[in-house]
Amino acid sequence: MLLHQDRLFPSEPVVRSIARSLYASVCDLPIISPHGHTQAAWFAQNEFFPNPAMLFVQPDHYVYRMLYSQGVSMEALEIGQMPMENPRAVWRIFAAHYHLFRGTPTRMWLDFAFQELFGFEERLSERNADFYYDRIAELLATEGFRPRALYERFGIEVLATTDSPLDSLEDHAAIRNSGWSGRILPTFRPDAVVDPEFDGFAERIRMLGETTKEDTSSWKGYLNALRKSRAHFRSLGCTATDHGHPTVQTADLAESEAAGLFASVISGKANSAQQELFRAQMLTEMAKMSLEDGLVMQIHPGSVRNHNRLIFERFGRDTGADIPRPTNYVDALRPLLDRVGNEPGLTIILFTLDESTYSRELAPLAGHYPSLRLGPPWWFHDSPEGMMRFREQVTETAGFYNTVGFNDDTRAFLSIPARHDVARRVDCSFLARLVADHRLDEDEAFDLARELTCGLVKKAYRL
Amino acid sequence: MLLHQDRLFPSEPVVRSIARSLYASVCDLPIISPHGHTQAAWFAQNEFFPNPAMLFVQPDHYVYRMLYSQGVSMEALEIGQMPMENPRAVWRIFAAHYHLFRGTPTRMWLDFAFQELFGFEERLSERNADFYYDRIAELLATEGFRPRALYERFGIEVLATTDSPLDSLEDHAAIRNSGWSGRILPTFRPDAVVDPEFDGFAERIRMLGETTKEDTSSWKGYLNALRKSRAHFRSLGCTATDHGHPTVQTADLAESEAAGLFASVISGKANSAQQELFRAQMLTEMAKMSLEDGLVMQIHPGSVRNHNRLIFERFGRDTGADIPRPTNYVDALRPLLDRVGNEPGLTIILFTLDESTYSRELAPLAGHYPSLRLGPPWWFHDSPEGMMRFREQVTETAGFYNTVGFNDDTRAFLSIPARHDVARRVDCSFLARLVADHRLDEDEAFDLARELTCGLVKKAYRL
Amino acid sequence: MLLHQDRLFPSEPVVRSIARSLYASVCDLPIISPHGHTQAAWFAQNEFFPNPAMLFVQPDHYVYRMLYSQGVSMEALEIGQMPMENPRAVWRIFAAHYHLFRGTPTRMWLDFAFQELFGFEERLSERNADFYYDRIAELLATEGFRPRALYERFGIEVLATTDSPLDSLEDHAAIRNSGWSGRILPTFRPDAVVDPEFDGFAERIRMLGETTKEDTSSWKGYLNALRKSRAHFRSLGCTATDHGHPTVQTADLAESEAAGLFASVISGKANSAQQELFRAQMLTEMAKMSLEDGLVMQIHPGSVRNHNRLIFERFGRDTGADIPRPTNYVDALRPLLDRVGNEPGLTIILFTLDESTYSRELAPLAGHYPSLRLGPPWWFHDSPEGMMRFREQVTETAGFYNTVGFNDDTRAFLSIPARHDVARRVDCSFLARLVADHRLDEDEAFDLARELTCGLVKKAYRL
Repeated sequence: MLLHQDRLFPSEPVVRSIARSLYASVCDLPIISPHGHTQAAWFAQNEFFPNPAMLFVQPDHYVYRMLYSQGVSMEALEIGQMPMENPRAVWRIFAAHYHLFRGTPTRMWLDFAFQELFGFEERLSERNADFYYDRIAELLATEGFRPRALYERFGIEVLATTDSPLDSLEDHAAIRNSGWSGRILPTFRPDAVVDPEFDGFAERIRMLGETTKEDTSSWKGYLNALRKSRAHFRSLGCTATDHGHPTVQTADLAESEAAGLFASVISGKANSAQQELFRAQMLTEMAKMSLEDGLVMQIHPGSVRNHNRLIFERFGRDTGADIPRPTNYVDALRPLLDRVGNEPGLTIILFTLDESTYSRELAPLAGHYPSLRLGPPWWFHDSPEGMMRFREQVTETAGFYNTVGFNDDTRAFLSIPARHDVARRVDCSFLARLVADHRLDEDEAFDLARELTCGLVKKAYRL
Repeated sequence: MLLHQDRLFPSEPVVRSIARSLYASVCDLPIISPHGHTQAAWFAQNEFFPNPAMLFVQPDHYVYRMLYSQGVSMEALEIGQMPMENPRAVWRIFAAHYHLFRGTPTRMWLDFAFQELFGFEERLSERNADFYYDRIAELLATEGFRPRALYERFGIEVLATTDSPLDSLEDHAAIRNSGWSGRILPTFRPDAVVDPEFDGFAERIRMLGETTKEDTSSWKGYLNALRKSRAHFRSLGCTATDHGHPTVQTADLAESEAAGLFASVISGKANSAQQELFRAQMLTEMAKMSLEDGLVMQIHPGSVRNHNRLIFERFGRDTGADIPRPTNYVDALRPLLDRVGNEPGLTIILFTLDESTYSRELAPLAGHYPSLRLGPPWWFHDSPEGMMRFREQVTETAGFYNTVGFNDDTRAFLSIPARHDVARRVDCSFLARLVADHRLDEDEAFDLARELTCGLVKKAYRL
Repeated sequence: MLLHQDRLFPSEPVVRSIARSLYASVCDLPIISPHGHTQAAWFAQNEFFPNPAMLFVQPDHYVYRMLYSQGVSMEALEIGQMPMENPRAVWRIFAAHYHLFRGTPTRMWLDFAFQELFGFEERLSERNADFYYDRIAELLATEGFRPRALYERFGIEVLATTDSPLDSLEDHAAIRNSGWSGRILPTFRPDAVVDPEFDGFAERIRMLGETTKEDTSSWKGYLNALRKSRAHFRSLGCTATDHGHPTVQTADLAESEAAGLFASVISGKANSAQQELFRAQMLTEMAKMSLEDGLVMQIHPGSVRNHNRLIFERFGRDTGADIPRPTNYVDALRPLLDRVGNEPGLTIILFTLDESTYSRELAPLAGHYPSLRLGPPWWFHDSPEGMMRFREQVTETAGFYNTVGFNDDTRAFLSIPARHDVARRVDCSFLARLVADHRLDEDEAFDLARELTCGLVKKAYRL
C-alpha cells in the first residue's frame, strides 16, 4: 500500500492511540473548503479531465517547480502549452523524478490520489510510469471521474472558488441553475482592480465601470462599482473576499486625500510608494465595506510574485516562482485596526508566509482584537511540519478559537481530500500530545477535533 | 482532578521517568521571584483579597484579552471599574467562556490555583460558576488567604516588585519595619523618568528633582537624581533595575551632546528620533551606574505598547493590547557593549518578545560577552512550548550558565506557584530528553535542575 | 564511557530502532569534507601537534568564547600567544570550566575525541585535568597522531581547505608532489581582494596583479587576475569558491558602471554604500566566472564580524566575537538570479546564520531555481537541534535533493570525525521519524541516508 492507516500520527504508543481515536471521530465529516483555486467551469460544464499529465503535472506549480529546481526544463514539461503535445512523455519525466518529492507534502497528496482514486499499490517510478498513465487515463474517461461525481465522492459540503470582479460569474450562475445540489461559491478577489501594479490597471477599472454602470473615473464611482460588484457576488452565495497584497500595509486617509491618490494611480503617474499607499488604503476600504455587507475578509500578504524574471517573461504568472518576504503586521495593520479593529461584527482572516510572525505578531494580535482571526498555514507551510509549527506557536497565545480550521487553497482538485486528511491527522496528533502530556482533557480534545474540522471554519466564513 | 501529577512531562516512558525524578528533586525548593508586578502594598497592609472576579479576572490582561478577542466587551467584564459593581456577573461570563483558554498557559495557571488553593476537582464551566464563586469568596475571607499567609504557604524565599523612582517605597519600608520575615524587594524601573514619550515627562523629572533634592533641569543634576534614587532603592534591598523600552537601541554620546539632548527632550521639543536617541543614551548611562553601584540591569524591549487606540483611550495602559515587534539586538546593543560589554562585574539580563532572535542574536551575544545573560521566555512566550523553544534554541550556543532561571513576571499573585511549577516541569523535561538521548549525563542533569531552579537566579540577581 | 552508542537517537523505541539501522548503514562510509578551515601546511609538513591546550583550546573560538562569556580572561587562556607560555595552566582552567559546555555540541565533539582518540572513560574535570593533559601530550608525540596518520585513521576521502588568492598554495603543491595519497584541495576564497572594507585592500589588489601578471589597476585587468587565480586553484584540484559577505546583496551593473565603481573602491574614496555595491557586483562576477570555469560557488553571509571592538583591537579577527544579523535573500539575490539563476550548469550553495529564512526564503528559492542548493546548518546551527530544525523547516519545500550533505567547516582537525558522526546520527534520526510516522518508505530512507552522507555532497561539490 502507498498509505499507512497510521500515517502522520507520532509513533509514541500513547500519543498514537489517542490520535487514532480523535481522527476516527472526524475522518468522515464533510469537507468544508472555504478558500481555493478550483474552477467553477469544471462544475458548470462537468467535462472529463483530459489526461494524467494535464491533471497532475501541468497545472500544479508545487510539482513542476521541484522538477525545474533539479534541472528539468519547463519546455520538457510542456508548461503553458495547450493542448499538450505529448502528455505521456511528460508523465514519464515526472515518474522518473518521483524521488525528488520524498519528504514533501506533494508526495503525500499524490500518493493519496493514486491509491484512493486510482487503486495503485506500488510507488510511482520510471519503471511503472506507463502502467500508471494508462490506468489513470482509462479511469478519467469514466462517469465517476467527472467533476461533479468527484465532488460528491469526496464528501464536499461547500467549495469556494476565487474570482475577479471582472468575471461575469456565469459559471457560478449556471451551476445554480442546473439543479445540481453541489454548493460552489465565488470569492471576491479584487486584486486586479485594486493593485495599480497590475498590467492594464486603468483599463480594468474602466471595464469595472462598464459592468457595474458606475463612473469609475471618480473615487466615489469606483467605490460604488466595487460595492455593486460585491453585491453581485453575494447574490451568488459569496461570503468572503480575498486580498493578495505584497505587504499587509494599511492606511486610513481622509476622503479628499484618497480621492487624489486614486486620480493619480488611474492616470498611471503614481510612483511605487503611491501605489503601495493606494493598496494600503484599499484594504481599509474593503474592511469598511465588509462591515456594511458582512463579507468576511481574507488577507494573503508577503509574496514576491514572479521572482524569476525569465520564467515570468516566458511562462507568465503563477508558475512556481513566487518567493516569500519578511512581513510586518504589527505596524502595517494599525491604521485599519484603529478604524475598524474593535468591531465584533467584522471578521478579518490573516495569513502569512513568514512563520516568524506566528508567535511574535499574529497570535498576540488575534488574541486581542475581536475582528481578527488566523488563517491556517499557507502554501509552503501547508504541510505536516508547517501545520504542527502553526499550532505549537499560535495556540498558547491565541487559543484554538481565534483560528479558522483548514483551507486547501488548491488548484489541484484531486488533492482536496488528501489535503484535508493531512490537516485532520496533524490536528489530531497535536491534540493527542496535549492530552498525553495532561495539558488538555480528553473530552475537550474530541470537542476541539470537531471544531477544527468543521465548526470554526463554518463560523468564521459564515457558511 | 484538574491537574495530573505527570502534566507537562513527555509521554515517552523513558523521558517521562527521568523527568519525574528530576522534578522530584526540585519541586520543593523555595520560590525565588526576582522580577514581577505584585504590589508591596499587599504585604504591607496584609488585607483580604476582595472577591473572585477582582482576583482572577479584572487585573489579569492574559485573561480578559482572550475574552475580548472573542467578542466579550470590556464593559461587561467591568475592566477598570473600582469597586466592581457585579463581580458575580463578571465571574459567570468568565466561567461560560472558560473553553477559550484550552491549550493556553492561563488555563494551566488557573487550574493550579483552583485545585491547590481552593480544592476544586471539576473543571470550571457555566454550570458550576456559582459553586466556584461561592467557595472562593468564602476562602478569601479566611486568615490563610491573606497575602502574607499565602507568601509563606507558597514557599517564597524572595519576591521583587517593580517600582518607579517617583514611588516613595513607603510600603517596602513598612514591610521591613513590621517585623515580618518575608523578603519583598523593590526593583528600580525608571521608564517614566527616562522615556520622553511618557505623558507629563518634564513634570515627572521636576518631581524627581524635588524628591532627591537635585536640580534636574541640568543633565548632571538629572543623573545625580537617578543615582540618589538608586541608592534609596538599594537601601531597601533592591538588587536590580528594569527597563521597558520600545527597542533595545543604545548610544554612547559625548557628554556635551548628551546634555544638549537632555535639554531638548525636557523642553518638549524633541522629535521622535531624538526621543529614541535619548532612551538609547539612558540605557548606557544606566549600565554605567550599574557598574558603580552593582545593580543588575534588566532590559525588556520590543513591545508596541497600547497598540489598540480605542482601548487605550477608554481603559488606559496595560490592558492586553501590547503587541511585539521585530527586535534587533546585534546592531542596537553595540554602543553600550563597546563601552561596558567586557566588564565581568556588570550583569545585563536581556529579554525578548521576538523568538527569531534566540538562536540568531541572543545566544551568540550571551555566549560571548561576559556582561550579558539571557532572561527566561517572556510574556507571550512564558508557556510550555515557549520555554521548550527557548531551551532548544539557546542552549547549544549559550549553554545553561548564561541563562538566569525563571521569572514569573506576574500581576496575579495566586499564579506564582503555578508558574514556577510549569517552569520546573518544562526544564526537567528538557533535561530528561537530553539524558534519554545520551547528550547529558544523569548526574549533570540533577545538578542543572537545581541550578535552573535556584542557583542561577540567585547568582544573576545577586540575591 | 563518555559516549553512548545510541547518543542522539530519539528514545522512542520504534524511532530509535530505525535510526540505529540507518546509522549502521552509513557510519563507516568515508568522510567527504568539502568545506573547512584546516591548514594545508599540516599535511604538507606532517609535524606533531604541539600540546593539548594548543590543540583543543587556543585555536577553537567555540571553546574560548564560552569561557570568556563566563568571566575567564583571554589572557589567562593565552589566546593569540605564540608559543604558549604555560599550556598546562590553560588546560587546567579549561578543565575546571568543563561544565559550561553541558548541552552544547562542543562538549559532544570534545568527548568524542577524548574517548575515540585518547581512550578516556571519565568526564574531564578539575580533578583529572593533569591526567588528561599528560596522556594527550604523550599520544600527540606518537606517529599515529601526525596529521597524515589521523587523516587516514579518520577515513577521510577528500578534505578542502579555504585559501586566499594571495596564497601561493605551495603547501597544496607540496602535498601533491609528496606522493602521499591523501586528497587535500584548496578552495578559492577571494574576500580579501573583493571586499573593500578589508585593511590594505588596494595593496592586496596590487599584489594580486603582481602574482598574476595582470594590470589590476583596471577593472578588466582585475577580473582577468581573478580568472587566472581561479585557474591556478583549479590546477591544484579546487572545485569550489567561497564568499563570506556581510549580506547576500548582489548587483548586475553595466560594465562601465562597474568599472567606475572599481576605480572608486581602489582609490579608497568609496563610501560604505559603494563598498557594499562593489561586493554585490562581485558576487555576480564570481557567478559568471563559475559558469565559465565550473567552480561551485558557496556564499556564507550575515555575520557581523568583530562585533566586540575591544577584543578585535587586542586579539584580532576570528576570536569568537562574530554575531549573526538578520539576512534577506529574496530581494538581495535577485540581480544575480536574474542574470544566471536559471543556468542548470551553475551551482550556488547558500548558507545562513538566520534560521528564520529556512522556511521563508531559502527553501522556496532552492525549491525553484536550478542553480541554487542549500548548504547544511552553519556555525552556531551546526548542532543537533540546529540540524533537526534545518531538516524540519527545509525538507517539505526544497526536498532532500536541493541540499548538499554535511560540511564540518572546522579549524579543529580532531573534531572532524565527531562532527560528521553527529550529522549522520541526526539525519538518520530525522529519516527514522519520517519512516515511523509513515511519511517515507524504509527503502527510501536507506537510500537517502547514503545520499545525505556521500552522494549529494560529491555531486554538489563536483568531487
